Amino acid sequence: MEEQQSQQLDELLIPPLNFAVVDRGIYRSGYPNITNLPFLGKRRLKSIICLCPELYPDYILEFLRKNEITLFHLGIDGNKEPFVDIPEDVIRLALKNLLDPGNHPVLIHCNKGKHRTGCLVGCLRKLQRWSLTAIFDEYRRFAGTKVRMLDQQFMELFDVSSFRGLTR
Amino acid sequence: MEEQQSQQLDELLIPPLNFAVVDRGIYRSGYPNITNLPFLGKRRLKSIICLCPELYPDYILEFLRKNEITLFHLGIDGNKEPFVDIPEDVIRLALKNLLDPGNHPVLIHCNKGKHRTGCLVGCLRKLQRWSLTAIFDEYRRFAGTKVRMLDQQFMELFDVSSFRGLTR
Repeated sequence: MEEQQSQQLDELLIPPLNFAVVDRGIYRSGYPNITNLPFLGKRRLKSIICLCPELYPDYILEFLRKNEITLFHLGIDGNKEPFVDIPEDVIRLALKNLLDPGNHPVLIHCNKGKHRTGCLVGCLRKLQRWSLTAIFDEYRRFAGTKVRMLDQQFMELFDVSSFRGLTR
Repeated sequence: MEEQQSQQLDELLIPPLNFAVVDRGIYRSGYPNITNLPFLGKRRLKSIICLCPELYPDYILEFLRKNEITLFHLGIDGNKEPFVDIPEDVIRLALKNLLDPGNHPVLIHCNKGKHRTGCLVGCLRKLQRWSLTAIFDEYRRFAGTKVRMLDQQFMELFDVSSFRGLTR
């Protein structure tokens, strides 16, 4: 039974929730579960930026060790009206790691791949000079009915001037 | 006024509707308009697969000429219950062109980047052995509230066996 199941997993690749290619060498997704590891293995990741505060379960730690993947564990809470703001300094650090080609291919993820990941990708898009309409449209594509005003405000106000020159 | 407008366009990049990276060297979007050309110019496209039957307006033809972009004009109508089926042979031809690294970077587009483009990307994902759940989820992300059963059925039934060996 177990063998049969693992053979099926060999045949079919199961991307994590909300998985997508952001740009060359940059991926985004929700929290990877054990069925996603064969798919992620094929991406030959060099690093992962995890935006969840919780520690990884053993199966992911083992996966990181086996594949020599660097973990940037930048755990934060998402925006939540009216008292929890996404910490800008952590997003800045994540963006710095994200932009370093030495870390590519890199996967960014949070729990659902909607809000925290969406904010970080939106900041990258600002740096790439995308219009806010396009940034919000991409954000909404992943957030679905769970769009958060505070996330959009965070992206709109995020100042990318200190990152100029780091993008391509 | 015109100068001011063109300067603003220089500063801000405006991706086409529903633009996204599908995979290394493969992009998808809705129909590009004139404000999207600076953004698309930066992608250094080698080819475009256009799934709309209509001929391009002059501003796109000029853009293709200037940037030496090959056009694969594979105009089709999308699925429409109960009598219009997306033509499988054209999708097969589009997929063949899409998989040829000699055509990369390539942009696939239709009108809104939802249905015809979504079907073609779904067929690529099948070839990449993605689970149907993940394929439909990606399709839905772009189709929004306009998900079409016939499109999902098309992707589910599409036989990729003749393409094996062409993917990476």
